[in-house]
Amino acid sequence: MKLIGVIGSQHPTPEGLARAEEVGALIARRGAALICGGLTGVMEAACKGAKAEGGLTVGVLPTIRKADANPYVDVVVATGMGTARNVIIVRSADALIAVDGRYGTLSEISHAFEQGKRVISLGSWDMARLEIPAELYVQAATPEEAVELALQDAEDPSDNPIF
Amino acid sequence: MKLIGVIGSQHPTPEGLARAEEVGALIARRGAALICGGLTGVMEAACKGAKAEGGLTVGVLPTIRKADANPYVDVVVATGMGTARNVIIVRSADALIAVDGRYGTLSEISHAFEQGKRVISLGSWDMARLEIPAELYVQAATPEEAVELALQDAEDPSDNPIF
Amino acid sequence: MKLIGVIGSQHPTPEGLARAEEVGALIARRGAALICGGLTGVMEAACKGAKAEGGLTVGVLPTIRKADANPYVDVVVATGMGTARNVIIVRSADALIAVDGRYGTLSEISHAFEQGKRVISLGSWDMARLEIPAELYVQAATPEEAVELALQDAEDPSDNPIF
Amino acid sequence: MKLIGVIGSQHPTPEGLARAEEVGALIARRGAALICGGLTGVMEAACKGAKAEGGLTVGVLPTIRKADANPYVDVVVATGMGTARNVIIVRSADALIAVDGRYGTLSEISHAFEQGKRVISLGSWDMARLEIPAELYVQAATPEEAVELALQDAEDPSDNPIF
Repeated sequence: MKLIGVIGSQHPTPEGLARAEEVGALIARRGAALICGGLTGVMEAACKGAKAEGGLTVGVLPTIRKADANPYVDVVVATGMGTARNVIIVRSADALIAVDGRYGTLSEISHAFEQGKRVISLGSWDMARLEIPAELYVQAATPEEAVELALQDAEDPSDNPIF
Repeated sequence: MKLIGVIGSQHPTPEGLARAEEVGALIARRGAALICGGLTGVMEAACKGAKAEGGLTVGVLPTIRKADANPYVDVVVATGMGTARNVIIVRSADALIAVDGRYGTLSEISHAFEQGKRVISLGSWDMARLEIPAELYVQAATPEEAVELALQDAEDPSDNPIF
Repeated sequence: MKLIGVIGSQHPTPEGLARAEEVGALIARRGAALICGGLTGVMEAACKGAKAEGGLTVGVLPTIRKADANPYVDVVVATGMGTARNVIIVRSADALIAVDGRYGTLSEISHAFEQGKRVISLGSWDMARLEIPAELYVQAATPEEAVELALQDAEDPSDNPIF
Repeated sequence: MKLIGVIGSQHPTPEGLARAEEVGALIARRGAALICGGLTGVMEAACKGAKAEGGLTVGVLPTIRKADANPYVDVVVATGMGTARNVIIVRSADALIAVDGRYGTLSEISHAFEQGKRVISLGSWDMARLEIPAELYVQAATPEEAVELALQDAEDPSDNPIF
């Protein structure tokens, strides 16, 4: 089962929330599962979108309390490792979409780069300002484009920088 | 979604393998998902049983390589944390069944005790020799009994030592 | 610098506390550093003993708060990973001494076995009841014997089961 | 004991190497201990500088093999958690200096921001381009200035964003 990671903060803009929900719905419609940090904000919106389309959602929590997961998470992985769980999300995702996002998201983007995994941004950090090469970071204009690119990353690992 | 953890070694007895497969099948038939370490032996047999009954399987790998998962794992969580991932399995499982098992399994059993979670043994370590109280460790005679007890643990957290 | 791990619970017997302090003192007198979980009980007593002899102490905390370390820890490593930090202690220690101990200690003993590392017990779990081979678990009669065996493990890695 | 974290890549510029060694020396001369990732490049240079001045060095390795540490590490913490160990370094450091650095360093900088810890840059990422506020990221002109700022962060936790 392909896992598309959706990363982003707990306090996104209203537009970020709407986009995250649309991203989640599109991932489910395309037959992939969603993996995220399991909390609120972008994570909850993406899970909500995926569940509305009958998808499967995985939440990798920073805490040990499974009840901390948002109500749209099917599979709750309770790491109890705080933000070190960000690394697990990046390692487990076959492709990564960043929606909005603050410092936690920036750490996930960095870990992805460190592993040679491309991140698809939907209004997230403007990493071009740091001269990050395009094969590691691409700006998508719409949820549709973001999910399309993510599925390419996930489906054809030999043909892209993922692995 | 309730997650039943199945823990055990990569080199079980033939009887252990058969029991693990039966445990996996019963978990799926009862509508729960299975979480395990994602590798071979007891883990693979349990996943195989679950998939034969249309269940959902989660494998929490010690490595960073998703290809290390056995072919019956649906959701591959690649921790890259070695046996520290044992803690994550214990934390995430709503109930735990140990089939056979060596030292890695013993560590998972210990972590469960430390968290106050009961472990159901199916031919695993004889923890009574260490005077572990019965509310933390119970021997099941059959896969049916093991899964029945596990579902009780998972379904009624207020009524048992889980949490 | 050789690191001798001292593992044990936060609520040991008075005898356990006294032995842990003596173990810490002997480790320091022999020129090794002490690594432990950084909290109270056996951990604090061992650190106290080591500092009284001018030794160096390392505490690997489960929390993110450095202030949680006992006052005798020199180097505070704040993992924020809960009991998953037990694995880090076992991996980092060149030899391991268990004083008293409950379930957390049992998990550390198990992780050591899983890595092929010998544990020296000073009144800790009676692992012989589980038929653990003598090369993985040995009972010491006194703090002196425990530290002597630990230094052998640490000094001559080719000649013992530690790596 | 105050722990000053020095983060940076394994393949720095020659100038980065020289600066890292000077930073390590200054940390030791000021009576603080150094914590880093334990490997080569910036990490090794900083440890070498610290040891030349009689300081104490702590290396938090990504691997399980203590032999992977550079020869100037006194206390080897072998996490076996890959780059998830970056989080442990950030959590444990009382102040952080980044020298040069690539994606791993960027992840550490991000984790520091996420925890509200200031990072002092010595030729590292130009985070101002991402509009990071000055209280979280400051450029130092020299090793002397970097260590001076770091000691301020470490010595007076109530007066700065650390903690």
